[in-house]
Amino acid sequence: MTETDDRAEPTGDRSVVISIDAMGGDKGVAAVIGGMQKSAQKNDAIRFLVHGDEEQIGPLLKKRPALAARTEIRHTTRVIAMDEKPSRALRSGKESSMRGALDAVSAGEATVAVSCGNTGALMAMSMLALRKVPGVNRPAIAILWPSRNEAGYAIMLDVGADIRADAQDLMTYAVMGASYARNGFGIKRPRVGLLNVGTEDHKGRSELHEAAELIAGIADRSDFDYIGYVEGTDMPSGKVDIIVTDGFTGNVAIKTAEGTAKMISRMLRDAFQYSPLSRIGALFALTSLRRLQKRIDPRRVNGGVFLGLNGIVVKSHGGADATGVSAAIKLAFRLAQSGFSDKLAARVASGLAVISEDRPDEDPAAEPPDQTEGTGPKADEAP
Amino acid sequence: MTETDDRAEPTGDRSVVISIDAMGGDKGVAAVIGGMQKSAQKNDAIRFLVHGDEEQIGPLLKKRPALAARTEIRHTTRVIAMDEKPSRALRSGKESSMRGALDAVSAGEATVAVSCGNTGALMAMSMLALRKVPGVNRPAIAILWPSRNEAGYAIMLDVGADIRADAQDLMTYAVMGASYARNGFGIKRPRVGLLNVGTEDHKGRSELHEAAELIAGIADRSDFDYIGYVEGTDMPSGKVDIIVTDGFTGNVAIKTAEGTAKMISRMLRDAFQYSPLSRIGALFALTSLRRLQKRIDPRRVNGGVFLGLNGIVVKSHGGADATGVSAAIKLAFRLAQSGFSDKLAARVASGLAVISEDRPDEDPAAEPPDQTEGTGPKADEAP
Repeated sequence: MTETDDRAEPTGDRSVVISIDAMGGDKGVAAVIGGMQKSAQKNDAIRFLVHGDEEQIGPLLKKRPALAARTEIRHTTRVIAMDEKPSRALRSGKESSMRGALDAVSAGEATVAVSCGNTGALMAMSMLALRKVPGVNRPAIAILWPSRNEAGYAIMLDVGADIRADAQDLMTYAVMGASYARNGFGIKRPRVGLLNVGTEDHKGRSELHEAAELIAGIADRSDFDYIGYVEGTDMPSGKVDIIVTDGFTGNVAIKTAEGTAKMISRMLRDAFQYSPLSRIGALFALTSLRRLQKRIDPRRVNGGVFLGLNGIVVKSHGGADATGVSAAIKLAFRLAQSGFSDKLAARVASGLAVISEDRPDEDPAAEPPDQTEGTGPKADEAP
Repeated sequence: MTETDDRAEPTGDRSVVISIDAMGGDKGVAAVIGGMQKSAQKNDAIRFLVHGDEEQIGPLLKKRPALAARTEIRHTTRVIAMDEKPSRALRSGKESSMRGALDAVSAGEATVAVSCGNTGALMAMSMLALRKVPGVNRPAIAILWPSRNEAGYAIMLDVGADIRADAQDLMTYAVMGASYARNGFGIKRPRVGLLNVGTEDHKGRSELHEAAELIAGIADRSDFDYIGYVEGTDMPSGKVDIIVTDGFTGNVAIKTAEGTAKMISRMLRDAFQYSPLSRIGALFALTSLRRLQKRIDPRRVNGGVFLGLNGIVVKSHGGADATGVSAAIKLAFRLAQSGFSDKLAARVASGLAVISEDRPDEDPAAEPPDQTEGTGPKADEAP
């Protein structure tokens, strides 16, 4: 393993510093360090700043000298509990590993933060430590959804349990989701759909109708295709790359999908244990079943990304094991390396400029401001 | 096959007239008549009033003399299309098979109506033809969800895509859902949960907090247990019998579950076709897979029930085949036979009385009115 900081190539494979919150996940520090180890073995260009209890982290790193060589420990004294209220975490979490991981991004020491901790607290702290990108009213959490599309995953946002999103929030989600799809998954012209209870124009709430108009109006400028309303059944269909919805609906949808997948796999197990013959069938089918399990394994698509902040935050599943943490780190690396954070901010600014142009109190024939032309449409293509 | 109208038993097995909309389903009149035939063969106590095009229905009945003997055809000239707007269907649908089916319930000729047609139009017409039960602001559509609970299904309502539901609407859904669980599935003391983005008290929208208080306050009187907030992952878990939510969220949830189930079964098929060995495995596993498919077959849990109207309406899936239609008829029969419609109205009245008691401008120590005591709490136990 060699440090790659000094490589000559200007883009693509320069080293990336990832700030890790080692505490607060359900499986403890060992799962996090295990995940770092897996990622480090596969990728020479990653370095780590790891925040947490030095007494727990130190011995685990000692056993992994190659990882230790590119990891710096930052000792912290407090852990944010999984069931802690965000407001309390904010008030008393200054000395926590979570806050430390975010502050390192804010200070420019790392490009991206990864945490397995309490989602609500992480979002609240991220907003405080990193601040929102100008033009973003509500940051969003985007997750991946197995799909038949080219990338193999559709992106859904917001799933962050936020209580409301108005039409302009939803439009911002579309812009941010498209930028994420380009930088995280190389989808050049993502297809954006708005989650609704039907695909006909008259269906759903009035803020959705308004959002549909805003998103359609901004699509071309923001280099995505707006495909209209989509339904829950469309999500894995491959016809849509980005599913835009409010955080409440999105959160219910992913948890429902998770519950359904679990129910079916439990029923499948029951079905195969029903009789001696079905048990023989299961033996023959084992490889096929394992292949299926791998495709829908949530550990392999692990990583909710917080969009709309000045810095990238990847939320790993609370129950993630080393494989899951490593998947989250991989995603964090890819986004950091593409310069995603700056590109997203430019996209949001460009989107806002379009909205301003449409304001009735301004001259509709006026040219958009120069800086928008320059930093906008092509700003976030993946390298 | 004999008519059973004249049996001596006062409850349980007297004949029930079911009003059928034969038109408007995706699979045509033949699937509907096929479903009626299946149900008639299994159940002597059903008679039918079938509404639709006599030229199509007549020949299909002629081939089934036993069914024809207990079926009366009502010729109609118009069919409500699947993509027709509810407002248009209302305006110009008076001569339709759908309206005919509902009017027969309204006139007391039948106890329950079954339709495979356009859901939005069916709800709009049902509200017009049957009127809402006093105290119900928004009628709801309740569906069944495979679950590990005693009944094998949890009930979710509303899934009707309605745009908003306030706290009192959600409380009414809880009361109606509990009544449905008792009369449709014999669950004596159903467990009611409120769908939210987390189980902690502070999670979610303010109308949910308000609804939680209302539902908890009415639970004992209405003979159900309120178990608090539930999440999407809890739905099939067996810990809850009735999941209360607004129509938008419920509609997204069921379509997401449907999409997930389809995705997994397609992936399962792919996995088994991957190699010659996996194909052999599939042969051995065939019985197990069929058993699983039967358990999650939507045709066997077919039937959304409209709650809160003066009369029972069962909405069969638009794409239902004869098996699906027969499942919807079975559900319709069970509800009609239990006198569900009257019992639900009594439960809603009882619930409203409790709410009135709580009003600050009334004497909180006052006894509830007599008629509520009489018709309330025990009114809807299944026979």
